Amino acid sequence: MKALVYGGPGEKAWTDKADPAIADPRDAIIRVDAVTICGTDLHILKGDVPEVQPGTVLGHEAVGTVVEVGSGVTTLTPGDRVLASCISACGTCRFCRVGAYGQCLAGGGWILGHTTDGVQAEYARLPFADLSTYKLPQTISDEAAVLLADILPTSYEVGVLNGRVQPGDTVAVVGAGPIGLAAILTARLFSPSHIIAIDKAASRLQAAKHFGAHATARPDEDPAEVVRTLTGGLGADVVIEAVGVPETFELCTTLVRPGGHVANIGVHGKPATLHLEDLWIKDVTITTGLVDTSSTSTLLRMLEAGQLDVSPMVTHRFALDDFEEAYRVFGDAADTGALKVVLSRS
Amino acid sequence: MKALVYGGPGEKAWTDKADPAIADPRDAIIRVDAVTICGTDLHILKGDVPEVQPGTVLGHEAVGTVVEVGSGVTTLTPGDRVLASCISACGTCRFCRVGAYGQCLAGGGWILGHTTDGVQAEYARLPFADLSTYKLPQTISDEAAVLLADILPTSYEVGVLNGRVQPGDTVAVVGAGPIGLAAILTARLFSPSHIIAIDKAASRLQAAKHFGAHATARPDEDPAEVVRTLTGGLGADVVIEAVGVPETFELCTTLVRPGGHVANIGVHGKPATLHLEDLWIKDVTITTGLVDTSSTSTLLRMLEAGQLDVSPMVTHRFALDDFEEAYRVFGDAADTGALKVVLSRS
Amino acid sequence: MKALVYGGPGEKAWTDKADPAIADPRDAIIRVDAVTICGTDLHILKGDVPEVQPGTVLGHEAVGTVVEVGSGVTTLTPGDRVLASCISACGTCRFCRVGAYGQCLAGGGWILGHTTDGVQAEYARLPFADLSTYKLPQTISDEAAVLLADILPTSYEVGVLNGRVQPGDTVAVVGAGPIGLAAILTARLFSPSHIIAIDKAASRLQAAKHFGAHATARPDEDPAEVVRTLTGGLGADVVIEAVGVPETFELCTTLVRPGGHVANIGVHGKPATLHLEDLWIKDVTITTGLVDTSSTSTLLRMLEAGQLDVSPMVTHRFALDDFEEAYRVFGDAADTGALKVVLSRS
Amino acid sequence: MKALVYGGPGEKAWTDKADPAIADPRDAIIRVDAVTICGTDLHILKGDVPEVQPGTVLGHEAVGTVVEVGSGVTTLTPGDRVLASCISACGTCRFCRVGAYGQCLAGGGWILGHTTDGVQAEYARLPFADLSTYKLPQTISDEAAVLLADILPTSYEVGVLNGRVQPGDTVAVVGAGPIGLAAILTARLFSPSHIIAIDKAASRLQAAKHFGAHATARPDEDPAEVVRTLTGGLGADVVIEAVGVPETFELCTTLVRPGGHVANIGVHGKPATLHLEDLWIKDVTITTGLVDTSSTSTLLRMLEAGQLDVSPMVTHRFALDDFEEAYRVFGDAADTGALKVVLSRS
Repeated sequence: MKALVYGGPGEKAWTDKADPAIADPRDAIIRVDAVTICGTDLHILKGDVPEVQPGTVLGHEAVGTVVEVGSGVTTLTPGDRVLASCISACGTCRFCRVGAYGQCLAGGGWILGHTTDGVQAEYARLPFADLSTYKLPQTISDEAAVLLADILPTSYEVGVLNGRVQPGDTVAVVGAGPIGLAAILTARLFSPSHIIAIDKAASRLQAAKHFGAHATARPDEDPAEVVRTLTGGLGADVVIEAVGVPETFELCTTLVRPGGHVANIGVHGKPATLHLEDLWIKDVTITTGLVDTSSTSTLLRMLEAGQLDVSPMVTHRFALDDFEEAYRVFGDAADTGALKVVLSRS
Repeated sequence: MKALVYGGPGEKAWTDKADPAIADPRDAIIRVDAVTICGTDLHILKGDVPEVQPGTVLGHEAVGTVVEVGSGVTTLTPGDRVLASCISACGTCRFCRVGAYGQCLAGGGWILGHTTDGVQAEYARLPFADLSTYKLPQTISDEAAVLLADILPTSYEVGVLNGRVQPGDTVAVVGAGPIGLAAILTARLFSPSHIIAIDKAASRLQAAKHFGAHATARPDEDPAEVVRTLTGGLGADVVIEAVGVPETFELCTTLVRPGGHVANIGVHGKPATLHLEDLWIKDVTITTGLVDTSSTSTLLRMLEAGQLDVSPMVTHRFALDDFEEAYRVFGDAADTGALKVVLSRS
Repeated sequence: MKALVYGGPGEKAWTDKADPAIADPRDAIIRVDAVTICGTDLHILKGDVPEVQPGTVLGHEAVGTVVEVGSGVTTLTPGDRVLASCISACGTCRFCRVGAYGQCLAGGGWILGHTTDGVQAEYARLPFADLSTYKLPQTISDEAAVLLADILPTSYEVGVLNGRVQPGDTVAVVGAGPIGLAAILTARLFSPSHIIAIDKAASRLQAAKHFGAHATARPDEDPAEVVRTLTGGLGADVVIEAVGVPETFELCTTLVRPGGHVANIGVHGKPATLHLEDLWIKDVTITTGLVDTSSTSTLLRMLEAGQLDVSPMVTHRFALDDFEEAYRVFGDAADTGALKVVLSRS
Repeated sequence: MKALVYGGPGEKAWTDKADPAIADPRDAIIRVDAVTICGTDLHILKGDVPEVQPGTVLGHEAVGTVVEVGSGVTTLTPGDRVLASCISACGTCRFCRVGAYGQCLAGGGWILGHTTDGVQAEYARLPFADLSTYKLPQTISDEAAVLLADILPTSYEVGVLNGRVQPGDTVAVVGAGPIGLAAILTARLFSPSHIIAIDKAASRLQAAKHFGAHATARPDEDPAEVVRTLTGGLGADVVIEAVGVPETFELCTTLVRPGGHVANIGVHGKPATLHLEDLWIKDVTITTGLVDTSSTSTLLRMLEAGQLDVSPMVTHRFALDDFEEAYRVFGDAADTGALKVVLSRS
């Protein structure tokens, strides 16, 4: 088959690779029908995630059709159309038993395109297939479903649920890239009164409004003052970090009200400064996290019920073998305006 | 009357001061029967809390007898023996309506010995007296009760409850001074399997064992390894910061397991480094907070039921006019072994 | 002044009554500007609430203008336009300290038009005025605000919040009278996938659809089957009882899924049968409750932000002295189609 | 092998039965080393659980040694000493994914000795073995471990955790049989101030005191008054039903305070009367449930740490082939004083 193979920092190629085969009774093999690229894939290509070995197939977000299942797989049959989740789960370790699949201790967690071959390929092996896939109803398109492989459940669980957004809240979202936009979209499920999007790029703030932000601010427009004005001087009930650099995290801790929540979604490569000299007295809760995909079934149900319109997230579409161009467009988002790009088998 | 008056950094005196008088209908005046000194008082004297004006009477932890009440006080009568809580509460602002008294927006919060005259005096004015005092049953001694003015509810609410200690947990307490010891004492109410106390001073670790720690470690004894050994390599379910310097906070974030809680109680004067490059993926919850005293009634009930033995916390006793010596002994805890000192009207 | 005075079962009159006067320093007197009638008022008139003494002024839902305040009132001034909440709160008892105002132990709770004179009058005395009223911004009309005196917070707190409605849930609401409709309206704040309204009257089911129900069923149309069809046979995540008779409560317990919630809002006069022989194994949570009005500020904020359109709830409008006709129309809802009726000072 | 086979109402025999064999790749076969009898087994023998077919091997609580595993079992090896839990879990259905194993939709839940052969036998087949067993450390005896197959997690999860026992609470436990005593034992993990045991039998009340009850009452001694006296007239924070008849459930709902919890553990065969005419206004939460065994790992950890002394629960010991006598002694608890009986391979 063909697959997008990582060749070390800065190197990738759509090239021949041996077809994946069942390696454990709990594996399934899928034919990849649609796949997307994550900001994390760009980090890997920059060399920021050194545990990814050259030779690894990239990608952790796909929709596919089951072609083969191991003897220990009980819920799937060849021909099933499935969402391949970014998180794999053994189902029996301490963390999996409480649904914390992201922290799986027995070989699961985020492994696809990370510590094992991923899904940016014509075919892929999915470990722990019973718990790592979701059968798709016909009413959900590949393009909508693939957004539930990572970005939607990540924004919802790590941003909105960890941040405990409640009706009537004021929510500040720092970063209006794809993850921040998905946080705005899913925060609205809890009917906050105000969502304030903060980003440097005017085009992203425009997109944020389209996704439901009530107000926007650039970092140089005193976002803290914007938040204070909307909250009688108190600060935001919930602040969601969706960038992943120290400056944006630190901004978040200045926007939150006493008793409020800062929910970090951003993937960070450097430490941030935590101003405990101000925060120790403020009853602040700060959370971090990797997605558990505990919300995936619920999000699929909402997609089916027409409650989530994810279609504006997909800005560019490509054929499955056009990874070169797809990465270029996605990596150059400032110029191309790309949010999510989807590559589909024609 | 006589009172301990702050004179600016490094300066204090037990000196004459006008008797306090009712200034608002919701005030009460108490005769102070027992009072203690807080680590925060030492911070004030060092000049770390600049909003305290010279001329202010220090102190926010007392037991007293009501001598006069304002016309708006409905639950107290002269002669009532009361605990004077470190937190005053208007009872009607947004935060008070949800019991978040520490964040009172209408003149309450931590005001005694801070922004208004405190209780290290022969008499004291207690604003918002209905919500800021607790009537004491005869079975509770002054000495036990005064520990519920601040240190016990602070350790319990900001450390144990914010940290969500559960039966069977492994709890690491960083800092075994009075606050850390009170955290150990109250953490035990939730039956953790292991409490690990971490402190530089052998004498404090000894005290920690007396208060219920199952294991102890000095910072130079690789406390992370001690925690890992007790938790199968996972880390502590709950880590409580009870010191207030960057190093101890940063240690806390290395001790916590994926999915665990770091509850900061320490009063910090400087920022800490938050290693988001490690923590972003770890499902960690970090909390800060000022006590709300929402647990004070419950703690009093437990004291009355004999469930909390706070007596070992009081190591030194003084007469009410012996503040000079009491501060010396308390301030020099490394040598004197002082935990809490109590000054009582004879 | 004129007031609607209860004369014993079946008896009421709009008649002369002494003007209310400050009886406690925490009282306020309002001029009533708008007032509504509650189903509970009808119960009182039937003699179902025997603790209401003849001679009592009825009513517990009003908007008014402050004309006088007691010396202990700190947040109100004559001229303030306020919502008079159905719940009064002392603010200092055990329950009030945790925001459980409905269970106030010191003379509060539901007292207006119950154990003390109510607000269906030209003027009214509001005990514990600081905690029992909410200042209204100009942007909120009397008619919208008066719905936040009881019916909206009751439906939201006792139905939606107690029932723990979550995004993607299936919610069944049994009873589509005003309370049930308000439950539908406020359940939508949490984005359930399906709301099923169940009622005998086709007109009410019609209204339910208007308020946001996705499906409807009459009791004779096998509502359990409707719920099963929408939930893959599992049952509803949340069932809200909004009638108050044994049959409807018992229906609720057959509609709920394993692990689901039954939230009772209905005012019951008779015991129900609880089928523990089926339910003991089903992980069901059943809640009851009187409103605490802990959500009133939030609902006001949402009203102001345009998130709650309560206007369709008001079906009939009257002058303040037209109680005779207003009660007739409201009491005869089957014929008149009345939901809420509002009487306003002209 | 020999096994205790159900022969229809009133009939059971320790008789020959074919050795169990792997029927699904996820099965394991254990040699039974220790086993106990549950009150539910007595119900089955009375004919109260008609879905149990004659010919079924009884029993759902055992400790054993793995002798064979199916090809899909990944965490067990022959020779492993394991606790066989009363609940089996597929691990992949909607409920298992959130840890609600008791409600497993794909063939798990309570199946042993119910819908499939149980563990009162020399050998037993354990479906879904990875999730339905717990490896035992050497420091935990068979006799202690077997109490964690059902009675301890049931009391803890369905009684104490569902009831939300908190430090300082007053807890009433209605029924002081084995389940009620285990509820008392595990409620103490949360340091309630008062536990009141209510039972008809003086001997059981005696046992309750031994297990940690602070007060006791017979139903004819006005238990509601006992509770009121200890709670200033308010009622119990948590009431645990541990009998399973309408009278005791109804008693529970009279003992609970406004805002309190009634947690039903009892297995009921008949409906109870729910006095909604009193309860509708009281903010009461009532829960039912089958154990999920989500706490089993934690309870094992606490057993290992010496925090749970379950040894007084075992009052009688028998050889594995002495079921006749063991059932007689257990079934005749009023005379024999039996709590739990353990049968062990010699």
